[in-house]
Amino acid sequence: MNFVRTGLLSITMAACALPAAAQFRKPEDAVKYRQSVMSVMGTHFYGRLGPMANGRVAFDGHAAAEHADLIAALSKLPFVAFGPGTDVGKTDAKPNVWTESAKFKDLSEKMQAKVTELAVAAKTGNADNLKVAYRATADACKACHDAFTTQ
Amino acid sequence: MNFVRTGLLSITMAACALPAAAQFRKPEDAVKYRQSVMSVMGTHFYGRLGPMANGRVAFDGHAAAEHADLIAALSKLPFVAFGPGTDVGKTDAKPNVWTESAKFKDLSEKMQAKVTELAVAAKTGNADNLKVAYRATADACKACHDAFTTQ
Repeated sequence: MNFVRTGLLSITMAACALPAAAQFRKPEDAVKYRQSVMSVMGTHFYGRLGPMANGRVAFDGHAAAEHADLIAALSKLPFVAFGPGTDVGKTDAKPNVWTESAKFKDLSEKMQAKVTELAVAAKTGNADNLKVAYRATADACKACHDAFTTQ
Repeated sequence: MNFVRTGLLSITMAACALPAAAQFRKPEDAVKYRQSVMSVMGTHFYGRLGPMANGRVAFDGHAAAEHADLIAALSKLPFVAFGPGTDVGKTDAKPNVWTESAKFKDLSEKMQAKVTELAVAAKTGNADNLKVAYRATADACKACHDAFTTQ
């Protein structure tokens, strides 16, 4: 657990418009951050909501809402960590993340929109609503991963 | 980004009281999950709030509140992933996590309490309040890491 124990930004940088990539001390930190966020999102989406949406465990409206809210919060985070120069190390991101930025942005925003709908659906306390929103979100995740990752 | 694409729980298991460790398909998944959560928490705490609390970047009340709320949400997550049998692989957790469970629980709850206070402080829009709460939270993080991790 490599906590970042020192500040990332100098006073000079803070006085300027802050480029997203400058939020990380080195490109590898950005890669680790986005992968960690995605991993936690994946656990709560596929591992926690998935069994409910697929009927393998009983629907629990309270838990579903908590998972969905967490996923919605996390869904906003990774994209600041795809700045220029972060195509390094053990990344599953394909080079077109950086050459097809508009498409990447569009698909990531579609995912975020679906996750927002998922959080609304989870709060209805209705298993069928969760199921429909879960599938739509999974499709949005898959569309972006198919286009922009090696897995 | 290894999404968990299949359910983790059987219907039989769901009908029983669910042991925390059963939320992960294998112990390594629990290790990866808790490390990912800690990593994201660390980035937002040390890397985002830290520079504000230490005066290296200008205080931004809105951003501080967002980071603190995220940290508060994340602080609840890792401990379910320290179940029996999860002392495997590349973990920084020391064996006393599993032999001094009461102390581990106590220190983790103290951290969570401080993080809750941090989120309240961040919302006051006062940089001094954030600074005080940040230091108290950092101390609580350190107390647990000193006692229970190799780093």
